[in-house]
Order: sequence, then structure tokens, then C-alpha cells
Amino acid sequence: MSRSLNTITMRWDGRSLWLLDQRKLPGEISYIQCSDFLAVSKAISDMIVRGAPAIGAAAAFGYLLGAIEVSKTARDNVSEAMRQVEDTLASSRPTAVNLFWALDRMHKCFDKSFDASDLIRSLESEALSIAEEDISTNKRIGVLGASLLRNNMRIITHCNAGALATVDYGTALGVIRAAHEQGKKVHVFVDETRPYLQGARLTSWELMNAGISCTLITDNMAGWVMKSKGIDVVIVGADRIAANGDTANKVGSYSLAILASHHGIPFYVVAPSSTLDSKLDSGKDIPIEERSHDEITHISGVRIAPENVNCFNPAFDVVPAELITAIITEHAVNYPPYDFRTHPGH
Amino acid sequence: MSRSLNTITMRWDGRSLWLLDQRKLPGEISYIQCSDFLAVSKAISDMIVRGAPAIGAAAAFGYLLGAIEVSKTARDNVSEAMRQVEDTLASSRPTAVNLFWALDRMHKCFDKSFDASDLIRSLESEALSIAEEDISTNKRIGVLGASLLRNNMRIITHCNAGALATVDYGTALGVIRAAHEQGKKVHVFVDETRPYLQGARLTSWELMNAGISCTLITDNMAGWVMKSKGIDVVIVGADRIAANGDTANKVGSYSLAILASHHGIPFYVVAPSSTLDSKLDSGKDIPIEERSHDEITHISGVRIAPENVNCFNPAFDVVPAELITAIITEHAVNYPPYDFRTHPGH
Repeated sequence: MSRSLNTITMRWDGRSLWLLDQRKLPGEISYIQCSDFLAVSKAISDMIVRGAPAIGAAAAFGYLLGAIEVSKTARDNVSEAMRQVEDTLASSRPTAVNLFWALDRMHKCFDKSFDASDLIRSLESEALSIAEEDISTNKRIGVLGASLLRNNMRIITHCNAGALATVDYGTALGVIRAAHEQGKKVHVFVDETRPYLQGARLTSWELMNAGISCTLITDNMAGWVMKSKGIDVVIVGADRIAANGDTANKVGSYSLAILASHHGIPFYVVAPSSTLDSKLDSGKDIPIEERSHDEITHISGVRIAPENVNCFNPAFDVVPAELITAIITEHAVNYPPYDFRTHPGH
Repeated sequence: MSRSLNTITMRWDGRSLWLLDQRKLPGEISYIQCSDFLAVSKAISDMIVRGAPAIGAAAAFGYLLGAIEVSKTARDNVSEAMRQVEDTLASSRPTAVNLFWALDRMHKCFDKSFDASDLIRSLESEALSIAEEDISTNKRIGVLGASLLRNNMRIITHCNAGALATVDYGTALGVIRAAHEQGKKVHVFVDETRPYLQGARLTSWELMNAGISCTLITDNMAGWVMKSKGIDVVIVGADRIAANGDTANKVGSYSLAILASHHGIPFYVVAPSSTLDSKLDSGKDIPIEERSHDEITHISGVRIAPENVNCFNPAFDVVPAELITAIITEHAVNYPPYDFRTHPGH
């Protein structure tokens, strides 16, 4: 019996990858059909799919779609054609390391199965494994992380590190989800997360759907909420974690970590070990994507700033390891000093 | 010759107060005619006019319009009718103390001139004085504050404490304006200032019009900009300053002050002495206005969050005195320990 994949974030039907168009949430639930690797690459660039683990899984299926195309057309120079597929997908977004991790797994599978008659079947199996493992990994992370949450805790989270940022279940929100499933009452203050509003559009929607109590705030309220509302923990996801624990995550995470430190509130980073980049000594070498100024000057197509205003729009920032209380992977709750050079995530 | 008032923010034509509709900036420049005190009160509540000093001046003209109405109708119970005018204007917004300060000045003028034949003329003169003094005060503040700015400094500001927040020239932006007029090159990073986007809509527009170099950022980027862009100072306005220096200002100021402190960057508060509330020992007694959730869930009428999402929308927060490097009024650059009980602002 053939394996299938069907979650809120993505579906593989054997021929196409269907991605939830996250740009349209929460107003509209619609899926985009990606029938070739270029469509997947564009879906990643355009943030139809976003979140480091979800990008990784989507890229794996993009690689698979590329291989299907190449197998039909480029008989002579398959390796070269696949390199182009891989390069295109790899250039869709620069910061989340899961993208490169997933492409690397697919590439290795390709090399191993190149001469086999069932190359495409092997690649499909590998892409499905990446997706399935992401879900089981998140559930393991959830159980590990939920041990840090007590009843009646008040949490701040930033951006969306939920089911929508992964294949399913979520990382930071997976921890909150697991605590909720264990019967712990929690309340989540959700940073709206400008400019792309992942908190307002995605996280509050996910939490409300899961029956988890939440309050939406603007990002600049986080400090005041820590002071006036008795916040117990801050929990965020990650896009890339260097060997020393420095963590790239959605812009605003750095400010949030400083605010948590000032108030003596634990700051937890939650990510699968595929987000660890053991080759980077520290966060200073993590490439930070800068995105279009339109994301700042327009909301839903409506201009909110003067014409020709100068903008700065880094999509991520880097939280230094010394501001991170613990990094939770599927293997362990890791405390400082972090060292992910040889034993990633445990 | 009769005195007149005509600035970008407001115009008094002898019969009506014309207020720039700041909700429509930067897309549209249009003025709202307020011909009675209720229109002024509503203009303050609805944030057609905003910014503590501008609110104070507008309320003074609202009081004047109320007196004109009362003088035509309520011959028997003028004092009682004026109390209603004052109460209505006083309840338009709770946090900015300049509102109450201006109403108090108008009330005292009313008491002094009650029996005079030229009551309305006296009140008009007092309202015009409040407005004119605001401009000259801001220019004095500007010169004092500009002494703290050196050539090539990089500044972060929050919300709009500019010409639009005052009768003219501005407080925090007045300092930047004065430095610019002195030939100092400065660059201003402008927090967009969610939820009402005063930074994106008003401050960047003002700075661009003044030829002052600026970059618009989202609020959550401020920490990363401090770290990666070499920020030298943070300069903000104020809505109410307690005797000990605790300062209520636009929500996000508290977070920004913590971030500045973490990076060793001076955090300056700039305000006229009319913003000092010497009766309040500390910031904990400053009333913090909470505004409609629609400000968070909608932008320009477009919904950006799920239906029925719970929100928290404090319009202000309080920066504790210990995070403030100096408080600049028209009288002096005040350094800690602050004590505004007996000598307001100098």
C-alpha cells in the first residue's frame, strides 16, 4: 500500500504537492497545487509555505518533482539537471537551514539510488520519510518541552512555530499543545509579528482552533505584558541554530530574549535537530534574509507609509546563546553551555 | 490686530478649530472643522488629533468653543454648563496630562474673567497663548536637546513626537529638527509603532518633508537595529511624567528603554513642562488607556486576525525613571535622580 501525506500544511497525492496558501489565512483556506519544482521554489520564496521544518519538507517534495521532470526529459545529463533543480530550491530562501538539510538528504538518496530502476520511488519514499519524521519529531519535542510547563503558566510566543510552520503539530506550539493535551492550563500571549503578521494570522488561529486560551498583542507590548501580566516563559521556534547555541529566528526574537532576560523570565528555543547547523561556530555567520520593503509599507495591499520611504526589512535576527535558557530538540532539553558540534541536539 | 493660529496640525479661524485628520496621513491631507466642543472631544477620542501637547491645545479651543455655545444659550447656569463642557473634554482621553493642564488653564481664565464683558475674548486669548507657547516651548526644548546630539549620530524614535503631536515643531522630533537646523547630520530609524502606525504614517512623513534622513522599521526590529546598525541614542516624547521621572508614553516605549539599557544606549525623554504631573509620586498611578481591539485586528479596515480573537490593547506603557538617561524640558536637561515635585522641569 502506498504511503500518503495529508496535513493542514501540505498534501502529497503521488503527482503534486498541495500547499496551504498561508498568505490568505485566517480569512481563506485554500491550497496551491505545485506540479513542478519551480512552483515549489516559488511557493517557498513567496511564503505560501513558511517555517523552517515546513520549508524543509516542501523542498524535499520539490526535489522529487524535479527528479520526475528530469527523468522524463534529460536522459543524458541527469546529474547536471538535478544540480539545477537543487540549486533553484536552495536559493528560494537563505536562512532556514532545514531547507539545505532536506535537500542534502534527497541528494544523498539520489546518489544512492541513481542506478536503480526505482529511483523515483526511492526519492518519493525519502520525501515522505522527511515529512513523517517531522511529525513524530515534533511530538517527541512536545513531550520533552511540556515537562518545563506547569499548570496556569502564562507564555509569550513570537511568529508561528506551530503546525503551520512544520508538517504538523509544531515545535514551540507543539510544546504548548503537548502541555494542553496533558491537561495543563496555559495562556498564550501571541506577538502579532510584524511585518508578515504570522502571530496574528496563523498562531492565534491555530491556538483558537486547538482550544488553547490566547491573547493577541502587538510586538511592542511584549515588555509591558511581561511586567504587568506575570509572564512565566517565552517559547519560540528557530530557523537555524549554530554550534554554540546562537539562534536565528523571526525578527523580533532578539528583542524578546533581551526583554525576557531583563524580567528574569526563561527564554526557550524549540526546534528539531535538523535546525542545528553544526558547521557554523556561531550565529555571526548565519545569512540573514532581507525581504521586500513592501512587506513594511503595505498591509493587504493597502499603503501605510509614505511613497519612497526608506525601509530595513531583515526577516530574521540572531539571539545570542547567553540569552537562551534552554534549547529543546527531540533528543533533549539542552542547557548552556551549548555545544552542537559533534552531538547535535543531545 | 487679532491673533491667529495656522500650523500643519491645527488652525483657529475665530469661529472653528480646523484639525488635520491624522488618521488619513500620509495618503491624504484633509482638515476636519470642529465648530463645537463635542466635535473637538470626538476628534481627540478618535485620534484625528493626537500627541499630548496637541491634545492639550485642541482641548483649550474645545473649551473656548464650549464657552461660545454656553454664552449663547445657558444664561442662568453658565458655571454648571461650563463644568459639563470641561468634563466632556476631560473624558476624551485619560493618559496625556497636557489635556487636564490645558483645561485647568482655561478654567482659571474663565474664573478670572467670568464677570468681565470680554469673557470669550479672554478665553480665546488664553487658548491662543497655550498654542503659541507650545511652539516657542518646543523650540527652546529643541535647542537644549540638540546639544546632546553630535554629528553623524544614529537615532531611534518611537511613535510621533513631532510637529503633528504638538501645535508645531515637535518635542522629540523638535530636538532632531534643531540638530538638523544646526547642520548636524543625523539618521533616524523610525519604529512604525503598532497598532496605530504613527511612526510609519506620521513620523517618516514628517522627517522626509523636513529633509531628515530616515529608515522605517517594524517595532520588533529595534533591538536588532541597536546591535547591527550602531544606534547612538533613543529619543521619545511623553504623555505624562510623574514626580519621580517615571514616564508614560506610547506603548512600546518600555520595551525600547530596556533594549537601549541593554545596549548601553542613552534613552532621552523630551516633553514640555506641561507634561509633568507633579501630583503623582510615581508612574504606577498613571491611568493607562485601553483602546478598541479593532486597532489590532484591522488595518485600514482590512481584517488581519481571526474573528473573535482576544486582544490586549493598552495605548501606553510606563518607562521607569531608572531606564531614562535624561528628561529634556524647555527649562533644562534633567538628569537622575528626578524630582519634579516642586520645581517642574528645571
